[in-house]
Amino acid sequence: MKLDIAVLSGDGIGPEVTAQAIKALEAIAHSFDHTFIFKEGLVGAIAIDKTGNPLPDTTLALCSDTDAVLFGAIGDPKYDNDPSAPVRPEQGLLKLRKELGLYANIRPVKAYKTLIEKSPLKKEIIDGTDISIYRELTGGIYFGKKELSEDGTVASDLCEYSKPEIERIAHLAFKSAQKRRKKVTLVDKANVLESSRLWRKVVTEIAAEYPEVTLDFLFVDNAAMQMILNPSQFDVILTENMFGDIISDEASVIGGSIGLLASASVGNRFAMFEPIHGSYPQATGKGIANPIAAILSAAMLLEHFDLMKEAQAIKNAVEKALELNLTTPDLNDKNPLTTEKVGDFIADYI
Amino acid sequence: MKLDIAVLSGDGIGPEVTAQAIKALEAIAHSFDHTFIFKEGLVGAIAIDKTGNPLPDTTLALCSDTDAVLFGAIGDPKYDNDPSAPVRPEQGLLKLRKELGLYANIRPVKAYKTLIEKSPLKKEIIDGTDISIYRELTGGIYFGKKELSEDGTVASDLCEYSKPEIERIAHLAFKSAQKRRKKVTLVDKANVLESSRLWRKVVTEIAAEYPEVTLDFLFVDNAAMQMILNPSQFDVILTENMFGDIISDEASVIGGSIGLLASASVGNRFAMFEPIHGSYPQATGKGIANPIAAILSAAMLLEHFDLMKEAQAIKNAVEKALELNLTTPDLNDKNPLTTEKVGDFIADYI
Ligand SMILES: CC(C)[C@H](C(=O)O)[C@@H](O)C(=O)O
Ligand SMILES: CC(C)[C@H](C(=O)O)[C@@H](O)C(=O)O
Repeated sequence: MKLDIAVLSGDGIGPEVTAQAIKALEAIAHSFDHTFIFKEGLVGAIAIDKTGNPLPDTTLALCSDTDAVLFGAIGDPKYDNDPSAPVRPEQGLLKLRKELGLYANIRPVKAYKTLIEKSPLKKEIIDGTDISIYRELTGGIYFGKKELSEDGTVASDLCEYSKPEIERIAHLAFKSAQKRRKKVTLVDKANVLESSRLWRKVVTEIAAEYPEVTLDFLFVDNAAMQMILNPSQFDVILTENMFGDIISDEASVIGGSIGLLASASVGNRFAMFEPIHGSYPQATGKGIANPIAAILSAAMLLEHFDLMKEAQAIKNAVEKALELNLTTPDLNDKNPLTTEKVGDFIADYI
Repeated sequence: MKLDIAVLSGDGIGPEVTAQAIKALEAIAHSFDHTFIFKEGLVGAIAIDKTGNPLPDTTLALCSDTDAVLFGAIGDPKYDNDPSAPVRPEQGLLKLRKELGLYANIRPVKAYKTLIEKSPLKKEIIDGTDISIYRELTGGIYFGKKELSEDGTVASDLCEYSKPEIERIAHLAFKSAQKRRKKVTLVDKANVLESSRLWRKVVTEIAAEYPEVTLDFLFVDNAAMQMILNPSQFDVILTENMFGDIISDEASVIGGSIGLLASASVGNRFAMFEPIHGSYPQATGKGIANPIAAILSAAMLLEHFDLMKEAQAIKNAVEKALELNLTTPDLNDKNPLTTEKVGDFIADYI
């Protein structure tokens, strides 16, 4: 297979970890006889520094022209304390999601046996956890009308959802549940929000098309508790944009290894793959960033193109690295390897 | 002191636990020579059953006429699966908050040494946690305009905040921090929401009036992670209604004993005190509900009227019950006491 891949490595540790993901993909191309062509684009704080725009038109054009986007991370502390600055790195990410129509963010959260001791939760609670979160990514309060009164004393954000926006991601969630443990949990706040009531109604209708999948409902406040009390009860979680942001970040730390978590953002035409850890500026350039989340994002990219054996080869190499404890300092305080050395091992193993 | 107290015990385990809180207050009245007069009102599912209204006018009038409200819990499973039913128990609670102007919900979250083993988090993580959460309670997306298009395919909720709404609760949070560890963390999503940017601006201005208190900021997704990774970093958390709902429920389970957590909802004229555990219908009438959260809510009521010694007497009695393990089955699987017996011990000890 021939794939054109846009590489948007972005800020902070983004470039270091993305380089390892590319190395893994190159190893796959070599072993399985594929052609992957990588094309770099600017995004985030570095794009602001160089062009004044967190998502230059050339980057957007590049993404629209390629088969998939490999994303690193965005964010720089110099923008963090001023969220009302006119230009900020996050705007690049939000615009990219919207323009490419990436309406579903998919995050697998798994408790790795070898790492269970690293979890902040007790072993018996986290054991067996294997969740797939489907977060709506281009609607809701993120993209609704924002207003600030002229005198600057009243501000508002509109959370709006339409039936088709809910349907398309619901289908993805149910299809995923069919291949998993056949349970979808809709997280909402239907006892308070009109938009949540629409979610419940639409998702209930769609559930009828998937009779072998069980649908249940959880209010978001209760979901935030259940994620800590009993995370292994979850199979597929389906939720709107803002709740998904919170619940998926909460879920990401219970496994004890945020440096391992990958995500896919997909739409009808485009798809983007990204580690969930963010730009982690304190670690930039030190060779201590864990490249595994970026490498597993590359595996998700391969799965997206139905290259299942290839994806499995990456996952096997990652499992091997974990088993042999050939890992960065976050997972290994005795004999840590650098970002690059972990990437080398994984690429060689492939 | 003479206090008129409205008692809204509500649904599920509400009546059982509220009865124990009253017992504790009666013991205080007796020992410290106060007069507390209790007046009962209907609220929640039981009010719907009896009057068709989750908050009958007589109940609202009763609350407006008394010095404080002691609240039990609301909610009944028969309403849970139909959040779009025209009349629901939650509406009573939301209306009560709004009508009484209870704009600040205050929740202390503390890791009790004696109970630390019950936490789903590892001991070293939860140890030393002592947080006071200030959640805005009468604004934001809970009370903003809700719309459903005529054909039922588009739904929206408006999240709106004004400067004065933010100021009044911010002052309470900073005043509380002054008496504690002098740190306020504002939880928001200022990288996405206009309303969050207004919160940051207004809270930053108010912080200048409290120079000895440090203000820091945390995006809500990060806050959901930090609450699990390192909860003892928090002193006072200040946040808007929806984020407060999620983050405070998440925080409530990390201590391992949701049956101990009390809350106060206060405004300029009225105040209401309530355990945070909810109606817990499965336990109703079995004598297994933990009354301590309700009893500690009574202690918060006393503190509200500056009866600090009296509040301390309740807290001492609770600590004694925990120390001697005279507790309900949630905290004691060997020789559990009933709800009533725990209440009796605490009242006697006072
Ligand atoms: C950077 C921010 C706008 C973004 C979001 O809230 O969606 C991030 O938290 C994420 O989850 O990808
Ligand atoms: C019952 C519900 C409307 C309520 C809320 O969301 O405020 C509850 O969850 C709470 O936190 O008191």
